[in-house]
Amino acid sequence: MKVQELSEIVNGRVVGDGETQIVRIADLEQARKGEIAYVDDEKFMPAAHESRASCLIVRDREKFSSNRTLIEVSNPKLAFALIGEALHPTDREPSIHPTAVVAETADVSPTAYIGPHVTIGAYVTVGDKCVLHPNVVLYDGVTIGNRVILHAGVCIGADGFGYVRHELGYQKFPQIGTVVIEDDVEMGAYTCVDRAALGRTRIGRGTKLDNMVHVGHNCDIGERVVIAAQTGISGSVVIEDDCVIGGQVGFGDHTRVQKGAIIGSKAGILPGKIVRPGVWWGIPVQPLDQYKRMNANMNKLAEMRAEIKQLRQLIDELVTERQKG
Amino acid sequence: MKVQELSEIVNGRVVGDGETQIVRIADLEQARKGEIAYVDDEKFMPAAHESRASCLIVRDREKFSSNRTLIEVSNPKLAFALIGEALHPTDREPSIHPTAVVAETADVSPTAYIGPHVTIGAYVTVGDKCVLHPNVVLYDGVTIGNRVILHAGVCIGADGFGYVRHELGYQKFPQIGTVVIEDDVEMGAYTCVDRAALGRTRIGRGTKLDNMVHVGHNCDIGERVVIAAQTGISGSVVIEDDCVIGGQVGFGDHTRVQKGAIIGSKAGILPGKIVRPGVWWGIPVQPLDQYKRMNANMNKLAEMRAEIKQLRQLIDELVTERQKG
Amino acid sequence: MKVQELSEIVNGRVVGDGETQIVRIADLEQARKGEIAYVDDEKFMPAAHESRASCLIVRDREKFSSNRTLIEVSNPKLAFALIGEALHPTDREPSIHPTAVVAETADVSPTAYIGPHVTIGAYVTVGDKCVLHPNVVLYDGVTIGNRVILHAGVCIGADGFGYVRHELGYQKFPQIGTVVIEDDVEMGAYTCVDRAALGRTRIGRGTKLDNMVHVGHNCDIGERVVIAAQTGISGSVVIEDDCVIGGQVGFGDHTRVQKGAIIGSKAGILPGKIVRPGVWWGIPVQPLDQYKRMNANMNKLAEMRAEIKQLRQLIDELVTERQKG
Repeated sequence: MKVQELSEIVNGRVVGDGETQIVRIADLEQARKGEIAYVDDEKFMPAAHESRASCLIVRDREKFSSNRTLIEVSNPKLAFALIGEALHPTDREPSIHPTAVVAETADVSPTAYIGPHVTIGAYVTVGDKCVLHPNVVLYDGVTIGNRVILHAGVCIGADGFGYVRHELGYQKFPQIGTVVIEDDVEMGAYTCVDRAALGRTRIGRGTKLDNMVHVGHNCDIGERVVIAAQTGISGSVVIEDDCVIGGQVGFGDHTRVQKGAIIGSKAGILPGKIVRPGVWWGIPVQPLDQYKRMNANMNKLAEMRAEIKQLRQLIDELVTERQKG
Repeated sequence: MKVQELSEIVNGRVVGDGETQIVRIADLEQARKGEIAYVDDEKFMPAAHESRASCLIVRDREKFSSNRTLIEVSNPKLAFALIGEALHPTDREPSIHPTAVVAETADVSPTAYIGPHVTIGAYVTVGDKCVLHPNVVLYDGVTIGNRVILHAGVCIGADGFGYVRHELGYQKFPQIGTVVIEDDVEMGAYTCVDRAALGRTRIGRGTKLDNMVHVGHNCDIGERVVIAAQTGISGSVVIEDDCVIGGQVGFGDHTRVQKGAIIGSKAGILPGKIVRPGVWWGIPVQPLDQYKRMNANMNKLAEMRAEIKQLRQLIDELVTERQKG
Repeated sequence: MKVQELSEIVNGRVVGDGETQIVRIADLEQARKGEIAYVDDEKFMPAAHESRASCLIVRDREKFSSNRTLIEVSNPKLAFALIGEALHPTDREPSIHPTAVVAETADVSPTAYIGPHVTIGAYVTVGDKCVLHPNVVLYDGVTIGNRVILHAGVCIGADGFGYVRHELGYQKFPQIGTVVIEDDVEMGAYTCVDRAALGRTRIGRGTKLDNMVHVGHNCDIGERVVIAAQTGISGSVVIEDDCVIGGQVGFGDHTRVQKGAIIGSKAGILPGKIVRPGVWWGIPVQPLDQYKRMNANMNKLAEMRAEIKQLRQLIDELVTERQKG
């Protein structure tokens, strides 16, 4: 595609030769003739100046020499992503792979791509332009919206983890609810979303889950939530819209995370806790500032002990002296 | 089914019209005509009184108005689970899906359900009424008891993680043992139980593992143990009967957890540690009370530092004065 | 095989009857006639003396009675592993299972074993003598070296987790790079290595990953690195050669771990951190000694608080007295 065409996709301003042909995106250092790269941080300016890319996506044309071909935009990284999509379309030819097993009663959009060894259970709905990579498993009755991308082995609708203890062991608690995955969700490999015991588990529109995330039964994950790899979410957790959750975080059941909250990697949230907007970290979670102060103080522990010992000694001397006195 | 029939299943006492037809279980708030719900906690009494369920399972009939149809039992939640099983049987028609790959030498009970894309290796035994969901992988020679439920992608018998370091790298240590899964075990999606190096890895009768649990080689997990999602168990760990383990817990190798111990989520157990009965938490684990006290003290650290500083100042004054004196 | 033949494999010295037939490896306590075991630690000497194994692999013949058949070597565990490999070869007949889906453009070595339900995408290379267990997924364009063992469900080349936030939600950042897995790598069940956004993600020669490890996009993992189960590695992390990483460790993005460093289980490494050679533990990681001291001090917190309180009291008395004086 021509620079001019790419620029139009992102509402950019072309500087230099709009006829330049671009075939591929690349990073600044690797880029060669026919490739386009982006700069969105001052620290990459030296690399940008040395880059052999045929075109750069930049925030401010003034910082580049006049012989450069540029696309000027307010958000170069976003423009790069959009241009990448145009140059390297990831759409797949709609099809159901012959090794996929699709229940007769399932309703799969004719525009969806269903990969090898996928299993789609009874009464499942799969929306338009979904991409289901190999080995995805959709248990009976779950609903997948439009443009949902499920990477290899994503498992939607397995039974939630619920038992009732009795004298002889555990009785399985019924897991007869369902799962609803809304539009534009993407899930990484082996991420699991369990079906509700009763009712439904929900993943909201535009939410992105990384690899091996566990979402327990009856959770309600809002829209545009981002959750990094290996995070585990117990049953009946609510995560409101626009939250950002790190990797390996653990949520106790019945937690609620309020809109826009940010939780650092490896944090642990106690059951029933309400996490207010803000940045949180630690086990159990606390506001980031508080956690940092606590950490700093923990590193002073040895010093504090030494100080206490010294104070004890001084006081003992004073006390002894007083007694003598 | 009629209320009278359901009541008989759980040895309950019917109050009101035993002929009422029930078709489905539901929770108190969602329940409608033809549905049955349960109350086992005082705090749900208002919801219970407003519920439109055709029948309630309750502990004490005295707390309900006389026009309600009730089943009175000592453990309403357990009764609800059993009634749910009766109304929504999860038994699957015994069958082996045509896409499953079953070794000729495997011995699969004719009453088992083997789902799509399951792989069953040589000399594997699968007991009566087992349910193997899609993509379950049973490596050669493992033994699965009766009524075992394995959710999507459960992997039994992959090689344990053992190597011997030498000058040039790592030599694989032989992993030629096996795995025994006893009766009535249930495992969540993608849970992995590795084969023993020598000998066997065991999961005891009635034990329940959530999604993505890792059980290393040569572990011996007892009966009626419950382990939540994403917990990782290193090699040669023993967990005795009736333990309850939270999510994302990590066990060092050769740990032993004694009968009935409870370990909180995200705890970490050092290699070789013996965890006695009781409730444990933290990294490394300590008795819950002790851990809570430590946490409380950690939140006092800033205060302690300020106090020490103040004491230092007072003492300095006293010392100066004494010197003058 | 005869003891003499086994000894030659490991350059050992036979003591006793080299003609003794050995059919199987075993541990000291379980070993019977026809089996071989090893002793590499003084504490197992009593078990060794009582072992019924037909042959023992030992470090020092002098410690055994003269009627024992022994193989004397400098590293008995390594010798045992090598002899185990000879007695129990794990090589699989080269073949592609009929249920595997292999793209026409993929280049799979005729000496590789491709198990049931494996998916191999377009332009993938799989080297000599690789073993791909059931359900392995190789996305388009990834490269697998020689003698690589991938356990059930290993997923190589799924999209990395990258998005650009905009007003309406998240735009997927292009994930058009690749993955290179070098020779002699082994990966446990469900381990995932994501493709690079641009460029490549690399797993170096001889590196061993346990079950359910997550390796993010653009990581560069060196040679002979060992990583235990459920560890999560964010994007663009570099782990240099010969590092040893415990289980459930979490790496922030752009971390660098220098050659030979050892990181304990459950540790957490902040984004951008450089971890120098040595032994590290904790969240965030610190040198092991320092972490241990901090832990010891944390257990003294209650004591410290009591001590401070007492000092305060003594000082108050001294101050009061002075004022009176």
